[in-house]
Amino acid sequence: MNQYIVLIDSSDEKGLVYKISKIFYDNELNILSNNEHVDKEHNKFFMRSVVSGDVNASKLYDQLRSALPLTVNIDVVEPKKKNIILMATKESHALGDILIRYEAGELDANILAVVSNYDILEPLVSKFDIPFHFITHEGLSREEHEANILECLKSFQAVDYIVLAKYMRILTPTFVEEYNNKIINIHHSFLPAFIGANPYKQAYERGVKIIGATAHFVNNNLDEGPIIAQEVIHVDHTHGWKDMQRNGRDVEKIVLSRAIKLALEDRIFVHENKTVIF
Amino acid sequence: MNQYIVLIDSSDEKGLVYKISKIFYDNELNILSNNEHVDKEHNKFFMRSVVSGDVNASKLYDQLRSALPLTVNIDVVEPKKKNIILMATKESHALGDILIRYEAGELDANILAVVSNYDILEPLVSKFDIPFHFITHEGLSREEHEANILECLKSFQAVDYIVLAKYMRILTPTFVEEYNNKIINIHHSFLPAFIGANPYKQAYERGVKIIGATAHFVNNNLDEGPIIAQEVIHVDHTHGWKDMQRNGRDVEKIVLSRAIKLALEDRIFVHENKTVIF
Amino acid sequence: MNQYIVLIDSSDEKGLVYKISKIFYDNELNILSNNEHVDKEHNKFFMRSVVSGDVNASKLYDQLRSALPLTVNIDVVEPKKKNIILMATKESHALGDILIRYEAGELDANILAVVSNYDILEPLVSKFDIPFHFITHEGLSREEHEANILECLKSFQAVDYIVLAKYMRILTPTFVEEYNNKIINIHHSFLPAFIGANPYKQAYERGVKIIGATAHFVNNNLDEGPIIAQEVIHVDHTHGWKDMQRNGRDVEKIVLSRAIKLALEDRIFVHENKTVIF
Amino acid sequence: MNQYIVLIDSSDEKGLVYKISKIFYDNELNILSNNEHVDKEHNKFFMRSVVSGDVNASKLYDQLRSALPLTVNIDVVEPKKKNIILMATKESHALGDILIRYEAGELDANILAVVSNYDILEPLVSKFDIPFHFITHEGLSREEHEANILECLKSFQAVDYIVLAKYMRILTPTFVEEYNNKIINIHHSFLPAFIGANPYKQAYERGVKIIGATAHFVNNNLDEGPIIAQEVIHVDHTHGWKDMQRNGRDVEKIVLSRAIKLALEDRIFVHENKTVIF
Repeated sequence: MNQYIVLIDSSDEKGLVYKISKIFYDNELNILSNNEHVDKEHNKFFMRSVVSGDVNASKLYDQLRSALPLTVNIDVVEPKKKNIILMATKESHALGDILIRYEAGELDANILAVVSNYDILEPLVSKFDIPFHFITHEGLSREEHEANILECLKSFQAVDYIVLAKYMRILTPTFVEEYNNKIINIHHSFLPAFIGANPYKQAYERGVKIIGATAHFVNNNLDEGPIIAQEVIHVDHTHGWKDMQRNGRDVEKIVLSRAIKLALEDRIFVHENKTVIF
Repeated sequence: MNQYIVLIDSSDEKGLVYKISKIFYDNELNILSNNEHVDKEHNKFFMRSVVSGDVNASKLYDQLRSALPLTVNIDVVEPKKKNIILMATKESHALGDILIRYEAGELDANILAVVSNYDILEPLVSKFDIPFHFITHEGLSREEHEANILECLKSFQAVDYIVLAKYMRILTPTFVEEYNNKIINIHHSFLPAFIGANPYKQAYERGVKIIGATAHFVNNNLDEGPIIAQEVIHVDHTHGWKDMQRNGRDVEKIVLSRAIKLALEDRIFVHENKTVIF
Repeated sequence: MNQYIVLIDSSDEKGLVYKISKIFYDNELNILSNNEHVDKEHNKFFMRSVVSGDVNASKLYDQLRSALPLTVNIDVVEPKKKNIILMATKESHALGDILIRYEAGELDANILAVVSNYDILEPLVSKFDIPFHFITHEGLSREEHEANILECLKSFQAVDYIVLAKYMRILTPTFVEEYNNKIINIHHSFLPAFIGANPYKQAYERGVKIIGATAHFVNNNLDEGPIIAQEVIHVDHTHGWKDMQRNGRDVEKIVLSRAIKLALEDRIFVHENKTVIF
Repeated sequence: MNQYIVLIDSSDEKGLVYKISKIFYDNELNILSNNEHVDKEHNKFFMRSVVSGDVNASKLYDQLRSALPLTVNIDVVEPKKKNIILMATKESHALGDILIRYEAGELDANILAVVSNYDILEPLVSKFDIPFHFITHEGLSREEHEANILECLKSFQAVDYIVLAKYMRILTPTFVEEYNNKIINIHHSFLPAFIGANPYKQAYERGVKIIGATAHFVNNNLDEGPIIAQEVIHVDHTHGWKDMQRNGRDVEKIVLSRAIKLALEDRIFVHENKTVIF
């Protein structure tokens, strides 16, 4: 028995579910779970089915491809560990949270490497027998630095996702376009509040009673990519901005790990700078 | 163009989605939303589809009935306001919240009447031009009292749901069986913690840091029916039990109104003392 | 036995607590609760004590005044119902929530009147025997309209707080200065995200996974006054902006009522566009 | 300049604050923060002051001791790292979270050792250069096993807290009495719901919509000690009990680390099986 995740992303039209479920039925597949979303405003249809049965992936894909209009995006995903690269700068909480999950076998992924513009986190990463690539930005233009990172990334065969676990440098459009909807960032505020630098200080100065964190795909506008997950905690007047930062870290790491899990399980569709999450 | 909610509740077997979606397709129906759930543990399948098109309800039902095994429960719901009865005792917060929503047209229901074992809430209810039935329990056995209530309820043509908006008396099995999965209660704790009387006092004495409320269908075991919705708030050592009660009221009323909305929109399936909520 | 709330707002200096507690001790007062906050960044000290004993308020004030530097702000508040004016436009949820609490005796205040620029909410308000003042803005400049409102407000003896229960017009600086830190507004977003018009639509278009509401004092910058309370709820891709609005209303009304309660109990200090809340 | 935490735990009586603040004033101490709580029901008074100035701890203690009734509990705590022992069984998430914080210097403590009844977590712990003591329970009575653990614990000079980071064995009264209010446990439910074994399975079977975790001091009744911190997350019908367990782990580790931080900062008072937390 094989198990697949079938992903459908299409303009909405009559008969899609019928045509897809007919193929599942004809192949005697079990539907283990099924999620659909119709976005009436944009006339879009999204579907994620987990099916099992005695069929191979390419045959299933071909049948779906024949049965459905050419405009329908189809993906038949075979379950296997995805390859991810982690990028970080100096803070260890988000990175450490991922490493502990990885060590426990909780993360359905291969961590190919950790890339950082500082060597501060090397001792932590080396404990977990994961390659650490220190690629300094010192004395380099942003473009030169990114070229070095890209060269490093290209040395790996197939990178499914790049996770920015508190990587504190802005990526250029060139870099981002290479990995469209493949770069997951954690921003330390509940976006769109407090875009940019030191959001905890901004939050403190504004006197908010709630702070948060946002995991999102990176696009070319700083902190404005499609949001995957958000979470918040309450604060009060006794919290200076460093207290907010300390408490906020717990939110950051949990939200980032939640977003990674969603990505690894192929649960995220991106459309119009928004996500549909099954 | 008619719009229907199609509800399917069945043991899980291959081809259900195919057969149902075929009928939708053959009738040229639009699928406005579709939710499915497969419960592998109990081998159950649940589905709620909102469809629109040029077909009448009984024809659609008949086609589904013919196409699907006899063991499949099928319901084709035509959108109309449901009839509800509210029951309350002395506290006005949950009842008042419902009345304000009703007045604003937010509630897709007809409130046929408010029934209470006290007359305390009559002035409030009468502001909203809703019949108030004061049915005292004084001097009556529980059975006699309930017989009086049942007589009152039977005087209404079709009661879809009975909402216990802080009705503080226990209902007998006889009463509950008459309205199986049709009675929605709000319990002032996050069940199963603090079953029974004065949960806020129990919570205070236990020194919890979180209190909550639970909306559930009523069955024959006190506070043990299928849970529809739960919500919590944080408390601390400065809260006496009356403070907890005061703050808890806000949770109670919101959770109860959320559960009512889910019921009015036919979003709740009950199975094995649990709910599937779409 | 009298009971007072003693409020101290001062630059921080040694001996304040000692001098204040000495007076409490000399008068044989019971301290029922005591909250202090030192803001090291701004060198500020805030204190709220609830005391009871056999002393009158003016004597207690005089003793504190004599013992403490002239720069210290002192207030000895005798417990009595505060006078509030509610302002609203068309939506009833926040106003209705306050009215139900008022009717239940939960609100320690006199509602002098409801003022609105529409007559839509008059039927609701009249149910509760509260004067409703319909003051249209039609055909008037903003200044003329506000002059009419101010005239109405001035007809009441002593207004402690003005509560904007979804009053959807911007107030001019002239108006705001008349009631400095006395106007409580509910904004339908977790500020500072989505300042301005239709925040739910903004939130929907941004694709956020959390929406919220903020109660704050009004100052001369739109939606930028000191924040009193905030709360959020989760949303997902199935929520259109009207769903967000509907769900958000529950947050709005709870947060506003929470802020009103804090104000009525003299629990809010304002400093540097922020609040200290005891 | 020295800094101290002054902790007062007493029956409530007039003049305590005055007498204490007089000593602070006479010694020209700065009050950096001050928290008080009066528990009227039990006539108790709790106070935690952080003060700084030019006085030594024993002199400050002596002055307080002289000024206050003998029934008043006084503690003058000098800031230093506390010594903690971690105990675990097989799961790494809570332990790993503590280790990552420790490595980052976030934890104001010395971790003396990790003690476990299995050797499964040894590879993880050894990465962080912390002694790991594998003390098997195999073939031993509960008393014999605990005697071995106690012998190990006694080998360390001064243990301030024992943290049960998912240590899955019940401790005997003998053990607990040795470390009264010094053992912090994380229970994987929002107590008092789902006491005992496999609370996630219990939660799944009850069909709750919220699950949680509780950090508490251990006393002689299983899962019934004073609660320090609680947190919850929402679940729905798509979550099997293993999903609940997986998601719950994030709550467990955050709540446990929050409780540890409160203990390390001397912010917890215990009274009558409840906590006062400043």
